[in-house]
Amino acid sequence: MRNVKVVIWGFGSMGQGAAAMLLKKKGVEICGIINRSRYVGEEMHAVLGVQKKGHPDVIVTNKVEDVIKEKCCDVVLGFTDSFTKDAHEKLKTALMNKLNCISIAEEMAWPWAQNPEIADELDKIAKEKGVTLLGTGINPGFIMDYLVIALSGVCEDITNIEAKRVNDLSPFGRFVIQEQGVGISVEEFEKRKAADEMTGHVGFPESLSMIAAALGLKLDKIEQTRDPIISKVDREHPHAKVVPGSLAGIRQQGFGYIDGKKFITLDHPQQIHPHLENVNTGDYINIKGTPDINIATNPEIPGGIGTFSMAVNMIPHVINSESGLKTMLDLPVPRAILGDMRHFIKKLD
Amino acid sequence: MRNVKVVIWGFGSMGQGAAAMLLKKKGVEICGIINRSRYVGEEMHAVLGVQKKGHPDVIVTNKVEDVIKEKCCDVVLGFTDSFTKDAHEKLKTALMNKLNCISIAEEMAWPWAQNPEIADELDKIAKEKGVTLLGTGINPGFIMDYLVIALSGVCEDITNIEAKRVNDLSPFGRFVIQEQGVGISVEEFEKRKAADEMTGHVGFPESLSMIAAALGLKLDKIEQTRDPIISKVDREHPHAKVVPGSLAGIRQQGFGYIDGKKFITLDHPQQIHPHLENVNTGDYINIKGTPDINIATNPEIPGGIGTFSMAVNMIPHVINSESGLKTMLDLPVPRAILGDMRHFIKKLD
Repeated sequence: MRNVKVVIWGFGSMGQGAAAMLLKKKGVEICGIINRSRYVGEEMHAVLGVQKKGHPDVIVTNKVEDVIKEKCCDVVLGFTDSFTKDAHEKLKTALMNKLNCISIAEEMAWPWAQNPEIADELDKIAKEKGVTLLGTGINPGFIMDYLVIALSGVCEDITNIEAKRVNDLSPFGRFVIQEQGVGISVEEFEKRKAADEMTGHVGFPESLSMIAAALGLKLDKIEQTRDPIISKVDREHPHAKVVPGSLAGIRQQGFGYIDGKKFITLDHPQQIHPHLENVNTGDYINIKGTPDINIATNPEIPGGIGTFSMAVNMIPHVINSESGLKTMLDLPVPRAILGDMRHFIKKLD
Repeated sequence: MRNVKVVIWGFGSMGQGAAAMLLKKKGVEICGIINRSRYVGEEMHAVLGVQKKGHPDVIVTNKVEDVIKEKCCDVVLGFTDSFTKDAHEKLKTALMNKLNCISIAEEMAWPWAQNPEIADELDKIAKEKGVTLLGTGINPGFIMDYLVIALSGVCEDITNIEAKRVNDLSPFGRFVIQEQGVGISVEEFEKRKAADEMTGHVGFPESLSMIAAALGLKLDKIEQTRDPIISKVDREHPHAKVVPGSLAGIRQQGFGYIDGKKFITLDHPQQIHPHLENVNTGDYINIKGTPDINIATNPEIPGGIGTFSMAVNMIPHVINSESGLKTMLDLPVPRAILGDMRHFIKKLD
């Protein structure tokens, strides 16, 4: 039986994580890697710093047309972009070439939330070409939506949902640290916020819409807030210096309203070194209903590994799926692929 | 659009819970209730002690053939039996009449674990008749298998899995209290255990097999142990008296081995009034791997409500499914049905 063939599009930390993970799995091979500029012309194993163990060399390229050809692989893993409008053309190119796709662009987890026209177009193309497109990741895609929904399955009724993800930004690099405002003053934060220059976490409208759709509810309104997490102590990071009174990070909240009341609350404080002020990291889901459900992870499920693992682990479900734009609500439960990946696939032509 | 039509087979506490839940939902109606002897001839609302609000009367009957007729409903909810061999004929009768079925018989969550011939036969009949059969519940069906599997989806690799469910038997009635040996002496426990008369929790071989199948692993061996939980204090219950030195309950463990080592450990201590010895109830999942995952609920997700809610909430997925014997691994994520049930169903003919 031939191997499952995968193209990796986007070779930053997520794409590299997925590649290293795939190299450890049975029954699957990487047949192409696309990246915009960095690593172009370099060989995959060398970039990853891993020993060759029988997998063919793969040279990173920025020439999309050299890799994305009709039916060249079983699935394209898209590790580019956060926004649907930015991922749109790349995904379209892959679909047009009759390739299944998995995207970790946050908004693609529920693209109808903010880009219904693009979502409908991608769905139409996927169906015409007989392939499947899935948006997934850790958040959105799992912790603050899928896990909430799965837990709701044991409930007779629900009156309120809260999910909170308290994480530590310390492992992240310059881009995230700057985007999350670590080390800036409160004045600077207010200025950037007013200018709409603080992206923060992308995905709350998607997670809120996914939960509501899953439960058969319609939200009247979605709201988001961003507040500074003002440090009381000194906190150090290679790319930021936090002094008392400056920002350790940002607390972002999202609310889904029904009949004028908050039905879903998502709460996501992100900062460096939270333990310095005795803040424990973790994921918390509290469902009020019949019965109440209270669940906590300790520490938080890590975002990076979680995201690329989810993309890789969903490969068989996407290959097995009927065609079209799908979400985590449509496909079977995600699961770690510990055996030969080919055995998870119904039909490998 | 017509309502979704449901038959309830088995009208004990689970069947009654489901009926009361269904009466609160939109777009669904109960069109028949079967019970062996108790409540026969009585009207559903009266048995449930709930006010009539427009739902037609339903008289409980023990005449299966008066209810189970070809295509008489969209789904039969089976709240009878724990063992596949006991549920077998009832499920077969429903399937032969072209009726989708959901069974909470514990072994039906993964009937291949202990009754592969019956599983294959039921699968064959379901496919011939174009209907779907699902085994589900809280445990097996969710806490110690489905939730473990879903969490594994964020893992790159896994070396070990432990799931522990610490619950309080105090809310249960005479049958469970006696079956779990509450109040008996250690000698009596050893005698009953030697005579294979302590059923305890049913479902560990099923949960272990489901996890292994989901991850693409093959277990060498499944083991189960039962140990007495010996009380240090007096504990009171309407159906048992626990004195120091006698049994507060039973701790049951299940192990799935790979290469001679425990890969999956399921641990389920069940007793009355655990708080009297400072034992907190809860569900705990600990996955060792990349990354480690540690999750806890507090208190445990209640078994009774959880079981009938899961059966009701899976109705649309079972109606929407392709035909055959399915498991929780095949169908989309469970979710609380808060909106009109008809809107969850792809095609209601």
